[in-house]
Amino acid sequence: MRNMTEAEMTDVVLQRYADAPDPRLRTIMRSLIRHLHAFVRDVRLTEAEWLAGIEFLTRTGQISDNKRQEMILLSDNLGVSALVNMVSASVPEGATESTVLGPFYVPESPAREWGESVLLRDGDDVPLLIHGRVLGPQGEPVPGATIEIWQTDANGMYDIQDKAQPEHNLRGWYRARQNGEYLLKTIRPTSYPIPTDGPVGDLLRATARHPFRPAHLHAVVCAPGYQKLTTHLFDAEDTWLDSDVVFAVKSSLIRQFTLNESAEAAAKWGTRGAFWELANDFVLSKSE
Amino acid sequence: MRNMTEAEMTDVVLQRYADAPDPRLRTIMRSLIRHLHAFVRDVRLTEAEWLAGIEFLTRTGQISDNKRQEMILLSDNLGVSALVNMVSASVPEGATESTVLGPFYVPESPAREWGESVLLRDGDDVPLLIHGRVLGPQGEPVPGATIEIWQTDANGMYDIQDKAQPEHNLRGWYRARQNGEYLLKTIRPTSYPIPTDGPVGDLLRATARHPFRPAHLHAVVCAPGYQKLTTHLFDAEDTWLDSDVVFAVKSSLIRQFTLNESAEAAAKWGTRGAFWELANDFVLSKSE
Repeated sequence: MRNMTEAEMTDVVLQRYADAPDPRLRTIMRSLIRHLHAFVRDVRLTEAEWLAGIEFLTRTGQISDNKRQEMILLSDNLGVSALVNMVSASVPEGATESTVLGPFYVPESPAREWGESVLLRDGDDVPLLIHGRVLGPQGEPVPGATIEIWQTDANGMYDIQDKAQPEHNLRGWYRARQNGEYLLKTIRPTSYPIPTDGPVGDLLRATARHPFRPAHLHAVVCAPGYQKLTTHLFDAEDTWLDSDVVFAVKSSLIRQFTLNESAEAAAKWGTRGAFWELANDFVLSKSE
Repeated sequence: MRNMTEAEMTDVVLQRYADAPDPRLRTIMRSLIRHLHAFVRDVRLTEAEWLAGIEFLTRTGQISDNKRQEMILLSDNLGVSALVNMVSASVPEGATESTVLGPFYVPESPAREWGESVLLRDGDDVPLLIHGRVLGPQGEPVPGATIEIWQTDANGMYDIQDKAQPEHNLRGWYRARQNGEYLLKTIRPTSYPIPTDGPVGDLLRATARHPFRPAHLHAVVCAPGYQKLTTHLFDAEDTWLDSDVVFAVKSSLIRQFTLNESAEAAAKWGTRGAFWELANDFVLSKSE
């Protein structure tokens, strides 16, 4: 068609995607087109606004590299990541809930030994010991599970944001024992601002939003025969739990870290001095 | 909020953008969020699909540079650019219609003299002469108008896509006379495939769409006191007029190029031998 009304335009574009061989891709593209067009019509987007959006998205891709994923950060900030998690990653009653991956995951982080610390720099930080079991839906121990964790250092930055940190600082994966038991050693996480030196930072400033995420550590738990769990553990004492900039908090993932000053307990877990402690089981769902 | 239903999630995100100081930005962001969330809910987007989309958009930004704008190409291919043009750049009855800018515009192209050719390479191409006037809504000549044009060479590639072409080949701007008259010299445009070596090419293949644009030349016409006109002139004899990959054809922009073999006419327009000819007026709207 050569002359179209606004509504016809959308139909013509949809028609042009009607022959996509893969039915799922066809469904996704046609829904995306319908909703994008509805947005343009609703706000009567001007060409200058469109161009500003094009430039914003282009910069968002260009600032991304193997250490920074600004497009994920943008999705997170629009609540899209949290919504995708909600519609696609719901778990059965009793299983540990999932939440967003975030932009700071790094594939192939190093293996850590039982109770080895992921803190790779010097310092007198009070350690955080997390112990518990990886369980299945019936409470059965899950053998062969791995638990990958990553978090910021005390300065609020991940290793990949901060050249002063050793590579893979506060990042690594642990193997649980055959009875599901695991022991992680890290430091208590801190709240932090997401990076504000890129397009997403510009958006936050322009929309008068604060950049903070409540203190959390990321965990991905995998085991053969079970669904991969991508989740966080949040610090119950954090200020930002009710206004996480990326909308990822779930009540069931909030944990109380307890200061344990018992020398006997420290010896049991292979550490020295006072330590923060969390007893936590991860409950996985069966693979479909 | 810490535990949300799908619908509540959208409300929470919208609420978080409610304090954006600029009312227009607030409107745009809230509408965008509403429509993006509706898309995610409608298709029940999975985390793997979301990640594929993130990677696609990231690559689209990363492949863009000062000679390539893949994000515009993507917008064009989703019919978004054409729809934005439709909702925001409508012109009064009688004025020349506008259409999309496209990804191949280059700012600061060189000035060309009256009737100078924008074809900068050697060759025995039959020239195309376009002559006419720049007029206002009442048919009055518009003084001080500039007409910027760009198009592909005969091989279907723009200068910025093709290292073999001289810089600014088939690209430049002309000044109309005080009585509105202008004379452009170029070659007859050809249909061409949009670039298919990037993410947009992947999308075309995955959705079984052809990559062709009908033969056209781009023009931007500016004059003090008048609205800037961004438009195309399409070749009436082209095969792809009814299936332009970027949805930009408007009937009123289709032109018949006529072969003129009169030596007298050639002399009148300062050329030699047979030439393609188009008599064309650009009719501008007044600035608001």
